[in-house]
Amino acid sequence: MFKLYYSPGSCALASHITLEEAGAAYTTERIDFKSNQQNSSEYLAVNSKGRVPALVTDRGILTETPAMLAFIAQSFPQAKLAPSDDPFAFAQAQAFNSYLCSTVHVAHAHKGRGPRWATEESSFADMKRKVPQTMAACFALIEREMLKGPWVMGEQYTICDPYLYTISGWLEGDSVDLSKLPKVADHRKRMSERPAVQKVLAEEKA
Amino acid sequence: MFKLYYSPGSCALASHITLEEAGAAYTTERIDFKSNQQNSSEYLAVNSKGRVPALVTDRGILTETPAMLAFIAQSFPQAKLAPSDDPFAFAQAQAFNSYLCSTVHVAHAHKGRGPRWATEESSFADMKRKVPQTMAACFALIEREMLKGPWVMGEQYTICDPYLYTISGWLEGDSVDLSKLPKVADHRKRMSERPAVQKVLAEEKA
Repeated sequence: MFKLYYSPGSCALASHITLEEAGAAYTTERIDFKSNQQNSSEYLAVNSKGRVPALVTDRGILTETPAMLAFIAQSFPQAKLAPSDDPFAFAQAQAFNSYLCSTVHVAHAHKGRGPRWATEESSFADMKRKVPQTMAACFALIEREMLKGPWVMGEQYTICDPYLYTISGWLEGDSVDLSKLPKVADHRKRMSERPAVQKVLAEEKA
Repeated sequence: MFKLYYSPGSCALASHITLEEAGAAYTTERIDFKSNQQNSSEYLAVNSKGRVPALVTDRGILTETPAMLAFIAQSFPQAKLAPSDDPFAFAQAQAFNSYLCSTVHVAHAHKGRGPRWATEESSFADMKRKVPQTMAACFALIEREMLKGPWVMGEQYTICDPYLYTISGWLEGDSVDLSKLPKVADHRKRMSERPAVQKVLAEEKA
């Protein structure tokens, strides 16, 4: 039995969908960012970074989306969510997820998380203004070179798909024109039709 | 036979050391950042992101350090550089490397790569001023909770170690006081004594 700590609208959605797709037995606990619950002493005892997601397992607590996604996939091999038996194909999936966490999510975070990296209000406003441009550039690369279609890695749905779906869900809010990203838009539609995605979104919105 | 594209002083050092530790057959090619070679048409054909490292394999080209490190480890299992047969332990190693790429390297990058996320000179200066604080906070967490000792994951040297060594090598330049980080300092010393590290540093400095 796993327990996922998440916050609606956060990147924890990728792990939440993956637990559902894997057929895992799990519970969830919502962390309320508006009341800064992620920095409460109770939650810092779970994840001292003060971030979501965090996954409680019987071996201990895991954090960091790419690691959690691969762990869930490898814990439920019958769900075929990662090509774990092929180191090169596995590395390609990991590289995609690593790009999402280290470049794309970071680009998006400059909209509202400026105080992580600067001190002045003028810098926060400057960072925020650039987000539509940086996110459009990231997704132009994804559209042109990375998203093989119909799924990220091609014919096989993998742990890359819920992660891309999670971050591409931020594009409208980041003022990126989805009409220039037809493959990404098609991927969003295809994801939204999956029963696991619909179930998880209903829970997170409840 | 692999081919590693790297630039001295960059995070490519982690992959370079790991190729050496694995006993891999490989060649290297240096990319000159001073002449902006990473954005030359020749190099963009290798890695359209215009970044190092990139690893040419007989299956194709890999990028993103955490994915490359796991790939090298899994390609040379006899070197025991990752606990690939234990999904939870493997995820812990991946989580550490994911933290380095998505949080610690990103914190450091705000010193000299401000134009990635903002437009104004005042913002770049503001970001740069905060780097000693953000890097000190990241490494305080690594010192207190993550670095088990003597190696990152404990008794077994893994792919987490050259990556930590690479990024901890930036601390003096980021004005972080290493005397407050005795475990990190000890890890640096221990790493610098390894023959593979000495060989790779000599090549990168040549």
